[in-house]
Amino acid sequence: MSKPLEQLKERLGKISDLERISRVLSWDQQTMMPPAGSDHRADHLATLRRVAHELLIAEETGRLLGELHPLEESLDPDSDDAALIRVARRDYEKAVRVPTDLRAEMTRAAAQARPVWVKARAESNFELFLPALERNVDLRRRYVACFDGVEEPYDILLDDFEPYTTTAEVREIFDELRAELVRLIAELRDTEVDDSFLRGNFPVERQEQLARDVVRLFGFRPDTWRLDPTEHPFASGAGVDDVRITTQYDPATIKSFFSTMHEYGHGLYSHQLPRNLERLPIGSACSLGIHESQSRLWENLVGRSPQFWRFFYARVQETFPEQLSGVELDRFVAGINRVKPSLIRIKADEVTYGMHIILRFELEQDIINGRVELRDLPQTWNERMHEYLGVDVPDDAHGVLQDTHWATGLIGYFATYLLGSVMSVQIWEKALEDVRDLEDQIERGEFAALRGWLGKHVHAHGRKFSPQETLERATGSRIDGKPYLAYLRAKYGAGVAA
Amino acid sequence: MSKPLEQLKERLGKISDLERISRVLSWDQQTMMPPAGSDHRADHLATLRRVAHELLIAEETGRLLGELHPLEESLDPDSDDAALIRVARRDYEKAVRVPTDLRAEMTRAAAQARPVWVKARAESNFELFLPALERNVDLRRRYVACFDGVEEPYDILLDDFEPYTTTAEVREIFDELRAELVRLIAELRDTEVDDSFLRGNFPVERQEQLARDVVRLFGFRPDTWRLDPTEHPFASGAGVDDVRITTQYDPATIKSFFSTMHEYGHGLYSHQLPRNLERLPIGSACSLGIHESQSRLWENLVGRSPQFWRFFYARVQETFPEQLSGVELDRFVAGINRVKPSLIRIKADEVTYGMHIILRFELEQDIINGRVELRDLPQTWNERMHEYLGVDVPDDAHGVLQDTHWATGLIGYFATYLLGSVMSVQIWEKALEDVRDLEDQIERGEFAALRGWLGKHVHAHGRKFSPQETLERATGSRIDGKPYLAYLRAKYGAGVAA
Repeated sequence: MSKPLEQLKERLGKISDLERISRVLSWDQQTMMPPAGSDHRADHLATLRRVAHELLIAEETGRLLGELHPLEESLDPDSDDAALIRVARRDYEKAVRVPTDLRAEMTRAAAQARPVWVKARAESNFELFLPALERNVDLRRRYVACFDGVEEPYDILLDDFEPYTTTAEVREIFDELRAELVRLIAELRDTEVDDSFLRGNFPVERQEQLARDVVRLFGFRPDTWRLDPTEHPFASGAGVDDVRITTQYDPATIKSFFSTMHEYGHGLYSHQLPRNLERLPIGSACSLGIHESQSRLWENLVGRSPQFWRFFYARVQETFPEQLSGVELDRFVAGINRVKPSLIRIKADEVTYGMHIILRFELEQDIINGRVELRDLPQTWNERMHEYLGVDVPDDAHGVLQDTHWATGLIGYFATYLLGSVMSVQIWEKALEDVRDLEDQIERGEFAALRGWLGKHVHAHGRKFSPQETLERATGSRIDGKPYLAYLRAKYGAGVAA
Repeated sequence: MSKPLEQLKERLGKISDLERISRVLSWDQQTMMPPAGSDHRADHLATLRRVAHELLIAEETGRLLGELHPLEESLDPDSDDAALIRVARRDYEKAVRVPTDLRAEMTRAAAQARPVWVKARAESNFELFLPALERNVDLRRRYVACFDGVEEPYDILLDDFEPYTTTAEVREIFDELRAELVRLIAELRDTEVDDSFLRGNFPVERQEQLARDVVRLFGFRPDTWRLDPTEHPFASGAGVDDVRITTQYDPATIKSFFSTMHEYGHGLYSHQLPRNLERLPIGSACSLGIHESQSRLWENLVGRSPQFWRFFYARVQETFPEQLSGVELDRFVAGINRVKPSLIRIKADEVTYGMHIILRFELEQDIINGRVELRDLPQTWNERMHEYLGVDVPDDAHGVLQDTHWATGLIGYFATYLLGSVMSVQIWEKALEDVRDLEDQIERGEFAALRGWLGKHVHAHGRKFSPQETLERATGSRIDGKPYLAYLRAKYGAGVAA
């Protein structure tokens, strides 16, 4: 190995370690840390971020990348080393453009805005949140101004979450989805589906056992994974052999079951990232969109399918006989797939979910481009909710204040949720094609072939290629809304039955 | 604040953060981490250590310390800033003497030796461990050779655990202790004390509840502390508001109760370190000896006292009525204070414990000075165990292989356990003097005054002063074996009763 390449890898290895340490500390903060420890934790996370950033933007990194130009050009672009230099160069060139002070201020502003948002949401008081939001948005505009040569300012923000993906590309897909989703939602609006049996009395300990059962069935090994309760479910971990997923149990419903399957999908991606590229930037996940394609695949394509429930429903019925013994499989599957426009994104069903995202994606562009005044956001939000989903927002807590993203400066993030859902169907259909009896396997509770297929065709690429190139290598095509729409129409247009 | 002082504090703040992060990761590794995650964890800890070390030994640190010379001399030596510069200079000067390669090799050798030791101990096979031990000892000798101007090579090793403390000083105290301990042990050898009721069937869940009760009684607040089970008890945490203690429950005995109290003492020290000096080297613990004085104080002076048990015994009896309903308080207190020479240090009673330490302290010097061949260690060990404690070592697993310290390169550490025990009595007696009805308070289950006294007189100094100066500020005198020996003789010479 060339000396500069070796030095670059060592430097990137340290950066990767520091990032993974941050993930473990965040997990700890949300599952284990005594509450009063949050100030220490903020210091520690800030230090990790600063040290990692300083290692990345150091002159030495630039010098090594410069020296590696000839090597990079001599290598097969698909080789690990070529991809490593390419990805590291991109990370470096983005990072050096942003003054350290601006970055620090963005971090500080986000940290300060979060508790303000918590209070504002609790009181449903947008006025209270407005100054913090203005500051976050202003800092994002200054961030965008550090870059040049882009078509639209929003491209810069989007790229941090879904790299190599432009606003125009996403808009094109979302425009196509919107038209059809609005139509489908209108058609389904009056369909009455009973899902009352999903609410009632579901003791947490039994839910916990069921969650353990399902992730074990999917392929969770206790020597490499953890599953813990938390307030807001997420997946995290320290590496392929230390995967940590979390879930939230509400004794009044078993809906958290789906969030456990969702986080399993994220966890499996982390678990099957390329082991030989660990501690390198190309050994991590490709993008948030690709990540979400994995969680949605397990949550929706597997977890809301009749096949899966033909296998698993008896287990759930046994666990909650008081609630479910009188509910036949067909009714259960229809209930967990009920479509009903509602106010809150994270509680939305598969069909209406997309409209929540499209609304945010459009609003974010309007915000960044100054087409909407921040003080008018609640009104705009409410109007569009009425237009897109036909629901009336009673207060800002159930409207514009519902998500934490803008409070923590995450503008450009939401789109990846829907991109992931769209890609999940493309990936699923390719898996169905390649693994001939996949649906039968699922009906038998067998998941090894699916895990293997995803590992080989999606996870193994890590971050070597762009999200779209990764998708193309896995499925043969780039992102396309049609399979997703066809799937939704096939599944929901005719009603769902087991 | 002067510019260089501000810069130094920022740099030291980062180093402190990285060290505290390591502590949280170590806690996680021993309580939460999926076992397969250990390779990631080793990488992450190595990176944290390396980055912190690089920040400390950087030329910039030396330059700042140079610039701060005049300021330091102009300040009151007791002021925080003077202490900070003094302590940082000492850390820096020690660190820069050791080549990075040697330090890395010491870390690597320790990591590699540990599993070898685990296997060797399991098989009671010293030969297997010998090469790893030879390598560790050789590296320690090379480490010692980096320094000059010391009286004895062992001083260098001791200083890493008990700074500003020489081998000669420790030897003087230990020589005094040894003479008297050997005598006391001989006197007590034939005393028969029944402690059979401490073994039996003590369900872990009930032990866990009892452990929670006792630490809450002492002063453990769930918003700032955690208590978790682990294999080898320890105390850790991320700062004054994030204190984590661990303990181990064995259903066959309630002896872990004392280790919980021991770890509580360590935890309380961490919890009461000076808040205004957080993120600075002077805001951390003074030395391992002072740390151990705190754990021994809660374990022995409080936790094995008749006063405490007059208050708490009924609670334990209620918890384990099958085991203890027929055992009166007097018998119980005598049982938990039984003196009996035995093979294993961590199971030793208060009186014989010291001899285990003295043996190791002497052997370590012999090893470093080449007065004992490593291959002859088992024989030497066994001879001295016979001489000091009158016990015959059946195999090396119960002898020279019992402790993990030498496997991980920790030579110079053991002495701090006994130094801590000795100092704990000096501190306790001063607290008794200052808090007039302290023993009555303990008999009433009240610990706030004791916590407050320790906080003010011991914990609040952090690492501003040397261990001996810290002790002197707390008690009016430097380390002295006499109060410790008098305490042991008073408590055990006449037998213990409630």
